[in-house]
Amino acid sequence: MNGAESLVATLVNAGVEVCFANPGTSELHLVAALDRVPGMRCVLCLFEGGVTGAADGYARMAGKPAATLLHLGPGLGNGFANLHNARRAHTPVLNVVGEHATYHMAFDAPLTSDIQAVAGAVSAHVDTVREASALGAAGARALAAAQSGMGHVSTLIVHADAAWTEGGIVADPVAPTPPAAPEPERVRAAAEALRAGQAMILAGNLGARREALLLASAIAAKTGARLATIGRNPRLERGAGTAVAERLANPAGPQSKALADVRNLILVGEGEPITFFGHPNRPSRTTHPDCAMLHLADPHDDALAALRALADEVGARTADAVLEPYAPPELPTGPLNPDSVAAVVGALLPENAVVADESITVGRSLHKFTRSSAPHDWMHLPGGAIGIGIPLATGAAVAVPDRKVINLQADGSGMYTVQALWTQARENLDVLTVVWSNRSYKILRDELGNVGLPNPGPTALSMLDLSNPEIGWVGIARGFGVEAEQVDTLEGFIAAFRDGIAHRGPRLIEVVL
Amino acid sequence: MNGAESLVATLVNAGVEVCFANPGTSELHLVAALDRVPGMRCVLCLFEGGVTGAADGYARMAGKPAATLLHLGPGLGNGFANLHNARRAHTPVLNVVGEHATYHMAFDAPLTSDIQAVAGAVSAHVDTVREASALGAAGARALAAAQSGMGHVSTLIVHADAAWTEGGIVADPVAPTPPAAPEPERVRAAAEALRAGQAMILAGNLGARREALLLASAIAAKTGARLATIGRNPRLERGAGTAVAERLANPAGPQSKALADVRNLILVGEGEPITFFGHPNRPSRTTHPDCAMLHLADPHDDALAALRALADEVGARTADAVLEPYAPPELPTGPLNPDSVAAVVGALLPENAVVADESITVGRSLHKFTRSSAPHDWMHLPGGAIGIGIPLATGAAVAVPDRKVINLQADGSGMYTVQALWTQARENLDVLTVVWSNRSYKILRDELGNVGLPNPGPTALSMLDLSNPEIGWVGIARGFGVEAEQVDTLEGFIAAFRDGIAHRGPRLIEVVL
Repeated sequence: MNGAESLVATLVNAGVEVCFANPGTSELHLVAALDRVPGMRCVLCLFEGGVTGAADGYARMAGKPAATLLHLGPGLGNGFANLHNARRAHTPVLNVVGEHATYHMAFDAPLTSDIQAVAGAVSAHVDTVREASALGAAGARALAAAQSGMGHVSTLIVHADAAWTEGGIVADPVAPTPPAAPEPERVRAAAEALRAGQAMILAGNLGARREALLLASAIAAKTGARLATIGRNPRLERGAGTAVAERLANPAGPQSKALADVRNLILVGEGEPITFFGHPNRPSRTTHPDCAMLHLADPHDDALAALRALADEVGARTADAVLEPYAPPELPTGPLNPDSVAAVVGALLPENAVVADESITVGRSLHKFTRSSAPHDWMHLPGGAIGIGIPLATGAAVAVPDRKVINLQADGSGMYTVQALWTQARENLDVLTVVWSNRSYKILRDELGNVGLPNPGPTALSMLDLSNPEIGWVGIARGFGVEAEQVDTLEGFIAAFRDGIAHRGPRLIEVVL
Repeated sequence: MNGAESLVATLVNAGVEVCFANPGTSELHLVAALDRVPGMRCVLCLFEGGVTGAADGYARMAGKPAATLLHLGPGLGNGFANLHNARRAHTPVLNVVGEHATYHMAFDAPLTSDIQAVAGAVSAHVDTVREASALGAAGARALAAAQSGMGHVSTLIVHADAAWTEGGIVADPVAPTPPAAPEPERVRAAAEALRAGQAMILAGNLGARREALLLASAIAAKTGARLATIGRNPRLERGAGTAVAERLANPAGPQSKALADVRNLILVGEGEPITFFGHPNRPSRTTHPDCAMLHLADPHDDALAALRALADEVGARTADAVLEPYAPPELPTGPLNPDSVAAVVGALLPENAVVADESITVGRSLHKFTRSSAPHDWMHLPGGAIGIGIPLATGAAVAVPDRKVINLQADGSGMYTVQALWTQARENLDVLTVVWSNRSYKILRDELGNVGLPNPGPTALSMLDLSNPEIGWVGIARGFGVEAEQVDTLEGFIAAFRDGIAHRGPRLIEVVL
C-alpha cells in the first residue's frame, strides 16, 4: 500500500465520502488511489474555485467534510476565495494539495511556490507530509482539525513521493474537539441582560439552526426580548414550523436601524455585529454606543446547549416558541422586479428545498417573501467573497440528492465561477439556477454613496457596468451542458420556475431585470 | 488631493498607462481617482485571473508594467495563479490591492484575511500603506521594484482610508535596479567552455529576444556550438530574419534526448534545465551527468551585454548569425490533426502577429511549422499554471493594438479563465482565439505513464475526461460577446482561420480534434 492509498483509506474509514477535485501531475497517485480504495466519490470541477465552493456547500448540508484535491500552489490559489468563504462559514473542509516530490524541491521548478503561506492564510490547520508512512496519520489529524468545533478549513500538503512510495499506514480516526460546553457565568449574565430589557437575542451559525432557534424563540417569548438571525448564516433552517425571527440586514444603514433600540444584545454563535466595510466618518459597529454585548456562545461553542441552559435559567419551554405559519405569498401579477420575483420564489418554493443565495442586492426582499413558505434550508455568503453561488449549489446537490437545490444568483458574482455549471451537468445534479441579470455590479453603485463618492465619473461608472456587451447566460449555460432559458416578464418567470421545480436535473433561468 | 489621487498621479507620471481591474468597495476611491487624474486606461475583467493574466500579457508586449486593481485577499487569491505565472515569466506587474480602513481591521470583518501572506508568496516586493501621505512614495517604490532587473511582481496593499483621506503627495519616479552588467570571469569561462566542444548555448528570457539571439547565433556559428531556446519563454521573437535556434522541448523525455550529447552548456538568461515535475526513479535534471553548466547571465542580468562581451571574446560578429529564411509551410490538405493545424497556422501567420500559446499537448509541432513564417512574437507559459492563454492574449492586444494577437488555446486550460473573452469583446480587442478541443486533460493522460501509472482505473480516467458533457465553446464565446464558429475539417479550419486573420476584432474558432 502506498502513501496515497493509506490516506484515502484513512479518510474513507473516518467517514469522508466525497472528494471534489481538479488534479494535476503531482496528484495523479492520489487520483489512482481512489480506484484502488473503494468508498470515495470523486467529483471533477473545471476550476478550483468550483472545487472549494462545492466542498463548502457539501459540508453545510452533509454536516461533515468533503475532501478537495488541488494542484500545487496555483490550484490552491484558484480555490482561495471560496476557502476564505468556508473559513467564515465555519465549514469543515479538508484540502489535499499536491506538492512536488521532495527531491524535486531544490530545483525550484516552474510550478514551485510557497504553498504553506497561501494555505496558512485560510486554514486553521496546515501540515506538510514528506513520507508515505506518515500520510495516513497526518490525514487523520487534519480531518479531526477540520471537524473540530463547528468546522474549520484544514490543509494537508502532500509531496508526490509521499503519495507514490510504498509503506503507507492506514490510521485510526482522531477525535475532533467538540463544540465547547456553555459557561454557567455567561448563562447567568445573559439571563440578567434579558431581565434588564431592550434586549435582543442575535443568533448565528450553530445558534441559527432549527432547534436552537426554537429555544431562542421560547426565551424571547418568555422575557420579552427580540429574536434575530444574522444576515449571513451558512445554513438557516426556515419556513413554516420554524421559529419566527427577524433577519438582520447586511447593509450598514438598515442594520444600525434594526439595532438602534437594543441595549442588551445576547450573542449566540456569533460575535458582535459590524459593517462589512469601514465607511468614512461612520462607526464599524452597528450597535448603539450604550448597548451591552453578552457573549453566550462563540461560533465554535455548543450554542444549542447554551440556549438550553439559558432556557432553564429563565424558565422558558420550547412550547413557548412562536412558529412561522404555512402562509406562502400569493403568486404575484404585474411587472417583473426584485419584489415580484421574490414573491414567486416564496409562492412556489418546494418543501425541503435548499437555497444557495448569492443574490446580493437583488435579493433583499427575499426574506419576507419566503419566511412562511414550505420549510427549507437557506445558505448565505458569510465570507463576502463573491463567486460562491454556483459551486455552493453544486456541492449541496451532491450532499442531498433527494432535495431540490435552488441557486438564487446575481449575474456579476455568478461570472467568477460559472464553470461549476459543467459539474452540475456532468453529475446530473438537481439544481435550478436563477440568474438575476441587472448587468451591473449594483452593490458597488450602492456603495459609492456610502464611501463618499456621490458623483462618480465615467471611468468609475464604467467599472460597475456589465452591459457592454450583455452577458448571454443562456448560451453560456448551454455551452456547459445545462438547459437554460431567458425570461423578461413575470408570467415567463413563473412558467419557467414552475418547470424548473417540476423537472429533475440542472436548469438555468436568466431573469432580465 | 487624496491618497488615491496621489497614487494614480505618481504612477501616470512614471509611465504607467493601463490598469486591469476588478474592484470592490474598498477600491472605489482608487477607481474614482482614475476619473480625476487623467492618463490611465482602466480595463475591466469579470474575474481576477483575467486581470493578472492580462497584466502579464500587457507587460510582455509593452515592455513596461500595467497596474492591477484587486479586491482584498480573495481578489488577490483569485489572481494568484496568473501572478505565479508572471513571477516565473519575470514580468513586471504592479498589483494594487485594497484593504479595509485601518480602524476597521480590529473587527475582523467578513472579508478580512491575511493579504500579506498571499502577496508574499508571489511578490518580490510587498508594502502595506496606512497613510494618505505615504501612498505616492510607496507607489513609486513598488513600481521601481516591479521594473527592476527583467521584471518582478510587486504588490501594494492600500488601506481604504489611506486612499480616501486628503493629504496625498505625488512622488517622483524611483529608478529601478537595471539588469546586472556581465561579469568578465563568466564571459571568459563561457568562451573556454565553447572552445572545449560539445557545447550548447541555451537562451531564455532576456537572452531569447531578437538581438540577443542574433549574437548567440553568431557565437554558435563561430565556435561550432548548438543554439537553443528554452521551451517556455515569456516572449520569443521568431520567424523569417531571426536567428535559427532549436527549441528545447518541455517534456522530460525529449528534453533529455536533446541535451544528451551536450557537455558544456552556456546558460543565457535562464538557470539549468530541469523537468517540470519529479518522476519516480528519474532525475530532475535533464542534462547529462558530465555536462558542465556555465551561467553567463542569470534571468535578471543584462543578457544582451553578456552576449556582446562573449561575442567579442570569441571574435564573432552579428553578420555571422544564421537567419531563418522566409519559407512558411504550404497549406496542407488531408485530415485535421495537430500537425495539419500547425501547418495552417504556419502558412497563414500574418507579419507581426503575437501568439499567446497555451496549446499544451496539441501544440507540440507548432515550432517546426512556424519557424520560417513571417516574423512574429511568441509567448509561452513559463510558470506552468494553466488558465493563462485567454487573459494573456487580452493583455497583449491592449499593449499592441495594431498587431494581430492569436491565442492558440487548449480546451482544458482555457476553461479556467474563460471569462476574459468578455473583456476582449468589451474592448473590441483584435484577438483570434483557436481552441483545440481534444476534450480531455491530455497532458495528464501522457503523465500517467511518467509517474508509474500505466493502467489507470475508471476514476482516474474519468478525472482526465472532458467529454461528458462536451463543452460548447461556440455558445460560451458568443455568450461573452465574441463571434465564434466550430470546425471539424481541415478545409473548414483554413477558411475560418483566414477569416479570423482578415477580420479585426475578437473571434474564436473551436477546432474539434
